[in-house]
Amino acid sequence: MTALTENGPIDRDSLSPMDSADPLAPFRERFLIPDDLIYMNGNSLGPLTIAAKERMHSVVINEWGRELIRGWNTAGWYDLPCRLGDKIGSIVGAAAGETVVCDSTSVNLFKAVAAARALRPDRGKVVTESGNFPTDLYVLDGLQSFSRENIELDVRQRDDVTAGIDSDTAVVVLTHVHYVSGAIFPMAEITKRAHDNGALIVWDLSHSAGAVPTNLNECDADFAVGCGYKHLNGGPGAPAFIFAARRHHETMRQPLSGWFGHAEPFKFYDEFVPANDIKRLLCGTTGVLGATALEAGVDQILEADPDEMSQKAIALSGLFQRLVTEHCGEFGLESRSPPDARNRGAHMSYAHADGFAVMQNLIARGVVGDFRAPDNMRFGFSPLFMRYTDVFDAVEILREILTSRSYTAPRYTETRSVT
Amino acid sequence: MTALTENGPIDRDSLSPMDSADPLAPFRERFLIPDDLIYMNGNSLGPLTIAAKERMHSVVINEWGRELIRGWNTAGWYDLPCRLGDKIGSIVGAAAGETVVCDSTSVNLFKAVAAARALRPDRGKVVTESGNFPTDLYVLDGLQSFSRENIELDVRQRDDVTAGIDSDTAVVVLTHVHYVSGAIFPMAEITKRAHDNGALIVWDLSHSAGAVPTNLNECDADFAVGCGYKHLNGGPGAPAFIFAARRHHETMRQPLSGWFGHAEPFKFYDEFVPANDIKRLLCGTTGVLGATALEAGVDQILEADPDEMSQKAIALSGLFQRLVTEHCGEFGLESRSPPDARNRGAHMSYAHADGFAVMQNLIARGVVGDFRAPDNMRFGFSPLFMRYTDVFDAVEILREILTSRSYTAPRYTETRSVT
Repeated sequence: MTALTENGPIDRDSLSPMDSADPLAPFRERFLIPDDLIYMNGNSLGPLTIAAKERMHSVVINEWGRELIRGWNTAGWYDLPCRLGDKIGSIVGAAAGETVVCDSTSVNLFKAVAAARALRPDRGKVVTESGNFPTDLYVLDGLQSFSRENIELDVRQRDDVTAGIDSDTAVVVLTHVHYVSGAIFPMAEITKRAHDNGALIVWDLSHSAGAVPTNLNECDADFAVGCGYKHLNGGPGAPAFIFAARRHHETMRQPLSGWFGHAEPFKFYDEFVPANDIKRLLCGTTGVLGATALEAGVDQILEADPDEMSQKAIALSGLFQRLVTEHCGEFGLESRSPPDARNRGAHMSYAHADGFAVMQNLIARGVVGDFRAPDNMRFGFSPLFMRYTDVFDAVEILREILTSRSYTAPRYTETRSVT
Repeated sequence: MTALTENGPIDRDSLSPMDSADPLAPFRERFLIPDDLIYMNGNSLGPLTIAAKERMHSVVINEWGRELIRGWNTAGWYDLPCRLGDKIGSIVGAAAGETVVCDSTSVNLFKAVAAARALRPDRGKVVTESGNFPTDLYVLDGLQSFSRENIELDVRQRDDVTAGIDSDTAVVVLTHVHYVSGAIFPMAEITKRAHDNGALIVWDLSHSAGAVPTNLNECDADFAVGCGYKHLNGGPGAPAFIFAARRHHETMRQPLSGWFGHAEPFKFYDEFVPANDIKRLLCGTTGVLGATALEAGVDQILEADPDEMSQKAIALSGLFQRLVTEHCGEFGLESRSPPDARNRGAHMSYAHADGFAVMQNLIARGVVGDFRAPDNMRFGFSPLFMRYTDVFDAVEILREILTSRSYTAPRYTETRSVT
C-alpha cells in the first residue's frame, strides 16, 4: 500500500494511488453497490454481492423450485448449519465441528450463556458490560428471570468489567468489538482472567467476524456467538452463528432443545437425546434461504486475506479520523472511539449535538452511515468494498453539511436502522 | 364440483371433469412444480410459486441491493413480523395484532409454553400427547430442565390426553393436526376443557395453517404457534409464527427477551422493557429473506377461498383412500389415519412393512411423498396445486410398484425429509 505522509494535508489525488495499489481492490467489483452511494454501514448490513444474488436465484429456482423436499439431501440443506458453521469457524479461529449457523444472535446468546451457567453449577454471578449492545443485556435479563439456576447479574462499566471477575463468577459475557465505539476487548487476556478465576466466557463477535481477526481457540474461549448480516455480508436478518469449544460438547446442555439438536432427529423418538457434538446447540429447522445468502457472503470473505482486510480497515478508519480532524475540526464533533485505529474495529462513532440531523443529511447526500441514540453518528469501514477516495469524498460531504448548517431542521425521531 | 358416484370403480376419465370444474384449478398455474412430479409433500415443504420467485428476486436486487440498510424503513422490513403475522392471523382465526412471524416453530413453542406457564404460577402440570411431532416434546423437555417454575410433564396417549386436564394443570400443549395420521383434535372442545379447569392452552398449528380451517379466537385459544414452510408455502425453513390472545398481552412474559421485543428498541437502553403488545414475543432481528418468501406464499393463500381449500383437501384425501383400497387392497397397506377424510388434515399415512423402500421407489418414479419412521408412508393433499387426476396417477404408480415388488432392495436408512 502506498503510505501517506505522517503530517500535512491530504488531497484526494494522493489517495487514488492507494486505491490502485490496494490488493483488495478487485473485491469491490464483486459487490452490487449503487453508484451514487458511499456505503459506510457494512458494519450494520453488508451489501449485496454478485455471488449472493446468483446463489439466491439458484436456491429459489433450482433447489426449492426443482428439488423441493429432496433439497434437504440433494442440495445440502441439512448440512448447512455445520458446513457454513465450519466456514465461519475458520474465520473466527475455531476448529472444524465447533461452530453452527442457526437462529438469531439473541437466541444463540441465550443458549450459550445458559449452557455456560449450567457448566458452573455452584456459581451464580454473570459479569457483563453496561452500554453493551442492548440485546445482549436483554437476553441476560430474560435468562435471569427464567432460569432455574440462580443468576446474579453484575453489570459493570467497561473499565471496571475485569475487576468484577472473581471466584464467584460463573460466566463472563462480553462483546469483542463495541457496537458504538468499536473499542476492542483484549480477548486472550480477559479469557485468561475468567479461567484463572474458574469462570467461563461467552464472546459476542457480532462486529468482529469478517472484519477484526479473532482466534477463539488460541484464546481458549468457551463459547461465542455472532451476527451474519454485518461484515459477513449475509443479507438482512441473516442467521447467526454459535461456537462452543470442543471440550464442552459432551457436557453442555442448553434449554432450546429442538429436533435439529437431537442425536437422531429423523427417528422421531419421543425422548430428547442431544446430539453428541456441536449440533446440540441447534434447535429448529434451518432457515435455508437466509443461510444460503450468508454462505455466499462467507465464501467471499474466505477468498480474502484476513491480514490485508484488517490492515485496510485500520487504514480506512485512521484516514477518516485524520480527515475529520483536518477538515471538520471546528464543528464540535467528538470521537467516541479509541484514538488509535488499531484499537478499534471496522467502525467508529462521533458524537455531535445535532448528530441525528447531520446523519440524515449525509444519507440524503448518499453517504450512508447510521445514528445511534443519543447522539452518535457511526461510520463503518468495510475493507472489501470501501476505497480510500470514498473516505475522502465522505468527509468532504460531511464538511459541506456542517459548514452550511443545512442540517438544523430535523430533530431525533426513532429510526429503525438495525445494527 | 362434479361428484363421484358413491360406489363402483373410478376411472381416470371420470376425474378430468372434476379438475376442469375445480374452482381452485387456476392456482395450479401459479406454482412452479416440475412437470414430471406428482408432489404429495406440500404438507412438508410447499412448492415454489411464481409470486415467491418474483418477490425473492425483488428483495435481493431492489431491497437488499439498492436500499441496503434503509430497507428497514423504505422496504417495510421492520414491520414484517407484524404485517405478515396479521396476514397469517387472518388465516388461523386471530384478530389483527395477535400474531407475529419470527424464529422457528420450536423456538416459538418454547416462548409460548414458558409464557403460559408463568401465567399460571401456582400450577406445574403441562399436559401433552406422546407421539406428537418430536420437537414439541423436546422443547418441553428443555423447558422443564431449565425453568425456574416447576414443570411436571404429563405425556399421555392421544385418547387419554383430555382426561389428564384437571385442576392441577397449568398448560395444555397440543398439535391440532397430527403430523403422521393427520388426525384433528377438536380445538373448541379441548380449549374449553382446559379453561374449565383453569388451565391455558397452546396449539401447534404446523399442519393446519393454510390447509385446515381454525378459528383461534372463536375457540378462545390462549397461544398458538405454527410452521411457515408447509401449507403456507414459505420456502425451506421459512420462519414460524406465534399467536397470543390479546387478553394476555399485558401480563405475559417470555424468556427470550431480545431487542425486537423491546418497547423502544432503537433507544438502546440498557434495561429491558417489553413492548406492550404482541411484539414482546419477538426476540432477535427479523430474517428478512425467509420472511419475504413466506409473505409471498401467504399472500397467495389469502386469495383462495378457505372453505373451497378445505373441501378440496378432503375430497383429494378421500379419493386417494378410496383408490388405494380399490387398487392396492391386497398389498398390506394399513391406514394410520382417521377413516373419514373430514376428520383429518391435508395428509394421511399408510404403514407398510416395506414402507421405506416403497416410498423410495415412488419418489424415483416422480411421486413425492415422504417416510416417517418406523413404517409410515405419508401423502399430502395440497388443495391449491394438486389435481384429482394426480391422485389417480399416484395410486396407479403405487400399485405398479407394489405389484412388481421392485421395492424389495433398500432397507431403511436415515432420510432427512424435514417435516
